[in-house]
Amino acid sequence: MAVPLDPTSSGFLFAENRNQPMHVGGLQLFDPPGNAGPDYVRDMFTRSLGADEVAPLFLKRPHRSLSTGGQWVWTEDDQFDIEYHVRHSALPQPGRIRELLALCSRLHGTRLALERPLWETHVIEGLEDGRIAVYTKMHHALVDGVSSMRLLQSVLSTDPAQRDMPPPWGRRPERTRASMRGSDDPAPALLDLPASALGSALGLATEAAGLPAALVRTLSRGLRNEASALSLYAPRTILNKPITGSRRFAAQDWEIERMRAVGAATGATLNDVVLAMCSGAMRAYLVELGALPDAPLVAMVPVGLKAREAHTASASGGNAVGAVMVNLATDLEDPGDRLDSIHRSMRSGKEALGTMTPAQILAMSALGMAPAVLAPMLRLHGITRPPFNLIISNVPGPRTPHYFNGARLDGMYPLSIPIHGMALNITCTSYDGHMGFGLTGCRRTVPHLQRLLTHLDDELAALEKATGIA
Amino acid sequence: MAVPLDPTSSGFLFAENRNQPMHVGGLQLFDPPGNAGPDYVRDMFTRSLGADEVAPLFLKRPHRSLSTGGQWVWTEDDQFDIEYHVRHSALPQPGRIRELLALCSRLHGTRLALERPLWETHVIEGLEDGRIAVYTKMHHALVDGVSSMRLLQSVLSTDPAQRDMPPPWGRRPERTRASMRGSDDPAPALLDLPASALGSALGLATEAAGLPAALVRTLSRGLRNEASALSLYAPRTILNKPITGSRRFAAQDWEIERMRAVGAATGATLNDVVLAMCSGAMRAYLVELGALPDAPLVAMVPVGLKAREAHTASASGGNAVGAVMVNLATDLEDPGDRLDSIHRSMRSGKEALGTMTPAQILAMSALGMAPAVLAPMLRLHGITRPPFNLIISNVPGPRTPHYFNGARLDGMYPLSIPIHGMALNITCTSYDGHMGFGLTGCRRTVPHLQRLLTHLDDELAALEKATGIA
Repeated sequence: MAVPLDPTSSGFLFAENRNQPMHVGGLQLFDPPGNAGPDYVRDMFTRSLGADEVAPLFLKRPHRSLSTGGQWVWTEDDQFDIEYHVRHSALPQPGRIRELLALCSRLHGTRLALERPLWETHVIEGLEDGRIAVYTKMHHALVDGVSSMRLLQSVLSTDPAQRDMPPPWGRRPERTRASMRGSDDPAPALLDLPASALGSALGLATEAAGLPAALVRTLSRGLRNEASALSLYAPRTILNKPITGSRRFAAQDWEIERMRAVGAATGATLNDVVLAMCSGAMRAYLVELGALPDAPLVAMVPVGLKAREAHTASASGGNAVGAVMVNLATDLEDPGDRLDSIHRSMRSGKEALGTMTPAQILAMSALGMAPAVLAPMLRLHGITRPPFNLIISNVPGPRTPHYFNGARLDGMYPLSIPIHGMALNITCTSYDGHMGFGLTGCRRTVPHLQRLLTHLDDELAALEKATGIA
Repeated sequence: MAVPLDPTSSGFLFAENRNQPMHVGGLQLFDPPGNAGPDYVRDMFTRSLGADEVAPLFLKRPHRSLSTGGQWVWTEDDQFDIEYHVRHSALPQPGRIRELLALCSRLHGTRLALERPLWETHVIEGLEDGRIAVYTKMHHALVDGVSSMRLLQSVLSTDPAQRDMPPPWGRRPERTRASMRGSDDPAPALLDLPASALGSALGLATEAAGLPAALVRTLSRGLRNEASALSLYAPRTILNKPITGSRRFAAQDWEIERMRAVGAATGATLNDVVLAMCSGAMRAYLVELGALPDAPLVAMVPVGLKAREAHTASASGGNAVGAVMVNLATDLEDPGDRLDSIHRSMRSGKEALGTMTPAQILAMSALGMAPAVLAPMLRLHGITRPPFNLIISNVPGPRTPHYFNGARLDGMYPLSIPIHGMALNITCTSYDGHMGFGLTGCRRTVPHLQRLLTHLDDELAALEKATGIA
């Protein structure tokens, strides 16, 4: 029952090495229900091991041998062992967020064993505030970052009274599926989709992977034309260096209301404010290290496009995605000026995207979906400068409280993939009035990563001040 | 300052792969001093990060490139980061030994990052009885199993009042070194030794590694002569299969007094009783799985030889080591008969060892020191049967209580290296009246490894009954 991997997924397996593990992660925080006893976490853990049936996505493992002609194929793990994949951990005293982030950093820096299905879930107890943390790690060959966050959401319920809910890897009974479609979550029940569609919730990875030529054509054009959506004049920074395999993860959330108020006062979007916070934080961080380049940093920002507008067909009916190169204006001193500049850069980038051909948009998508294959491809064409300095993604999540067997989801933070030349990744996701920032960096290349949290916080305050709100 | 690795150490790096990580481990349990406060473990952890100076052994990392001609060399890690190597963990509730063994199994199943110095120490809190666990992992290219256990012991003190003791990776001040020599620990201060000597506390690995020809001659002789110290008629068992990279670790200790009493009643040595316990446990385990072979299992048992008797010179002044192939008599039903048979097999093996030439003994040593290189070498010579079924080592430790900054060492358990064709390793170490058994197996090849603990316990009771003690 061997099924060949699609080219994108294979690419992620081939691109992986010790320094560059190709898995995405999600950290979720849950508030246990009011009547939770001392054995709540252990019971939750034990029950999660006992799922009646495991969904195919969580059973398949990659395999490659002479008989497959050296190609990667998916094969069902005939010795599947749930206890290997689902693990129970605890934080050392005093169990602050600091200890949790240290543990997640460590877990995210270890490679998944390719001989087994490509996922792990860690149920983590010992937070001083009594919350339960769940860190889930999935290989990018199995699922991309957006899909993995949606997958984790898709098993939750809006009903705090609902019980007997299976874990993400459990196969959902028909009844639950129907009720899930009624929720405000825009994602379809991802477990229903075939693996190839699941490979990209955005529906384009597979097609885009076949378009390296279009990609390079688009990039070349970008190199010659600054006004294009692809501005490739990113400065060299400390982030654009080779990386090692160890990771540092930092995460925090901010009230969306505060961020929206900044946007409303200036005509900027929520996403612009996210970018402005990142810009100010990066500037402060690089200044502290004496490493701020004269030229502004360029961020690659994946943006969703309605499939119809983009004139692309998507097999899974998902959204098309494009990538906008945004001038982060880190050369400007004033927070308000930076926000302005980002807003304009983002808007002109989106407009440029609207005038691109479907092939170009597909090629752009490959930028976002397969950053690891980008660097060698650029080198092949004599392009040695970083095409951008970092990737900043913003993945919308559910707006209302969600529950897992009565435990309230309290926060959700994505962990992404630093790659050679792109040592830091910032991914945000919104949930129930908060914007969760997840910063994943190479521990060695990006020193003192956690300082960025303070800088993000300072920057939001500075933006409030600059826009006359606070 | 690149120093070439000796051939044995290089061999361990080359032999390593995902399924066969080449590190040894040690689990130590400590009782905190009576006045320990709630921050005791965190303080201990934080202090251990602050060692003034780090010993060279813990700073060097392997490196291989075109400029080294593809050879492995040691180079000092110029970005050494103690926080990567020393980690603070906790057990989930209820913090039983079961949770501790699960954590150690997981930690032992992850490869060390070759880009960094080849060691990790995990300070683990959360045991329900208030004890502190310390799991240390070192690559076999750096230090063998015996040396690593001795290294961990060598930093301890017999004085419960002593404080300001540096961790194993801290460089010892002159004064402390002198006082350590006064202890009853037979090992010299290992940190004083040059790395090449440290590579083997037994002092022979380097020399033996140059003797593949002698090794094969000795093995070939063994194949033709059952009466030799090398009996190679080991049956095929489930243990002698390819392994995966995941590990299961089980550990427990028993009172040496009970074991000695069994020996005294039958004229057997303490080591014979260790082997008899393992024999009975393996028999019960394999019977349960319906996998007991008709022919008795053969264990490879490393034995110490006085260097003078073995007519070998040892650079570091350590002991020479040989290996005896012991018939474990798993075909016999009666525990007393098994002990008898093991006692005779062990004695005749030792006698045979006494009549071997130095070259033969050196070659035998390579068996114990470099099991990973053995299998390919045997296949090269058309020998496809397992030369033995498992390795059982017994490493003597200190006899009196030892302390680390006032915390009393309460137990010590070695974690060893399963290899392809040798999926289970049993290593014992004695300390303060107890014999600690550490069982390390491939999680997939050796199912229900923890059952062996019950069987070991049952077997000691059965031996006591068989010898009329209980």
